[in-house]
Amino acid sequence: MNSIIEDLNWRYAVKQFDSTKKVSDSDFEVVKESLRLTPTSYGLQSFTALIIESNDLREKLIEASYGQRQVADASHLIVLCSYSTIKNEDVDSYMQLISNTRNVAMEHLEGFSNTIKGTVNSRTEEEILNWSTRQTYIALGQLLHTCASLRIDTTPMEGFDPAKYDEIIGLSERNLTATLVCPVGYRHEEDSAQHGAKVRKPLDDLIQTI
Amino acid sequence: MNSIIEDLNWRYAVKQFDSTKKVSDSDFEVVKESLRLTPTSYGLQSFTALIIESNDLREKLIEASYGQRQVADASHLIVLCSYSTIKNEDVDSYMQLISNTRNVAMEHLEGFSNTIKGTVNSRTEEEILNWSTRQTYIALGQLLHTCASLRIDTTPMEGFDPAKYDEIIGLSERNLTATLVCPVGYRHEEDSAQHGAKVRKPLDDLIQTI
Repeated sequence: MNSIIEDLNWRYAVKQFDSTKKVSDSDFEVVKESLRLTPTSYGLQSFTALIIESNDLREKLIEASYGQRQVADASHLIVLCSYSTIKNEDVDSYMQLISNTRNVAMEHLEGFSNTIKGTVNSRTEEEILNWSTRQTYIALGQLLHTCASLRIDTTPMEGFDPAKYDEIIGLSERNLTATLVCPVGYRHEEDSAQHGAKVRKPLDDLIQTI
Repeated sequence: MNSIIEDLNWRYAVKQFDSTKKVSDSDFEVVKESLRLTPTSYGLQSFTALIIESNDLREKLIEASYGQRQVADASHLIVLCSYSTIKNEDVDSYMQLISNTRNVAMEHLEGFSNTIKGTVNSRTEEEILNWSTRQTYIALGQLLHTCASLRIDTTPMEGFDPAKYDEIIGLSERNLTATLVCPVGYRHEEDSAQHGAKVRKPLDDLIQTI
């Protein structure tokens, strides 16, 4: 079997982590760099990854995650947050980053800047959040793949209370909305979920050629 | 450099494909299988990947893609579509798939089935489409990563006219909404975009430890 497919088949949503096993610093650097390299619309990177190290916070987040202990038991807890709003200043900072990285004068970026600002300013606050949220799901897709390739386990979670996360972590003052929670670490040998055959539609049901 | 990071750094959004280069059948099987293994909420897989082989359709889609020729010039064109609605029958089919795959009696799946149906039926049509759309972005994240690992180029595209795609491909009669377009193939040696340094925020701006 192709090694990519082996990686993706190895992955499953962990129900019980082995809390004694920690992801090494060198592996976690790859995980972080993979997040950083996530492709996003216009390259705006309108998300932030919060790594929750505080045990106190992680214990509090269990209840806000409907009792799912993975948020406290996994080696690391990543909370992927989306920008609640995108302001012209965010676009300006991005242009500055491009200018610095590629050694391009700011005036040559005006067209691109205006395009993005036009898009951003034509959208309602709800549409902006929806848009930035979608980019955050790309980050999740890339994150899960990277972890699987490193043989690091994950539990992608939509099932949590964003308002409680906001309250516990203090997100709104950072202009962030919690979109996805992803504990990463190593499966417990007693996690029976690892033995279930992977359930996926046959290729012909999922993919159609026209 | 770690090989995963090498792959992700190699990737960029191709502006011009070499239309003479085709992705091999064996590589494209990996691409399709990677789409099939995409993790989704509850495992529902509420998306469909359409592979547009018809040259006639692909030429028509250029205009619906605001003139971006990649949709016609790339080796393969993938249109990722989200379920516009999710019906109880979709959940029932999924339960049947679990039952067959894991050899579990349908009655043991009733709790899980009711949970999903409860979620689905409590949401408006717009919320369902938003939800299924987000899952489709996970598929994109996994797809881009897989292609990069295979050294296959991609152009992830949000910038197209979904209504025109619907009309040209006939999506609404399939209960689908076009979410993302992704031409895959090989960069043209004259595509100057490949030489631009990758622009990404520094790690400390994107990732915060608490």
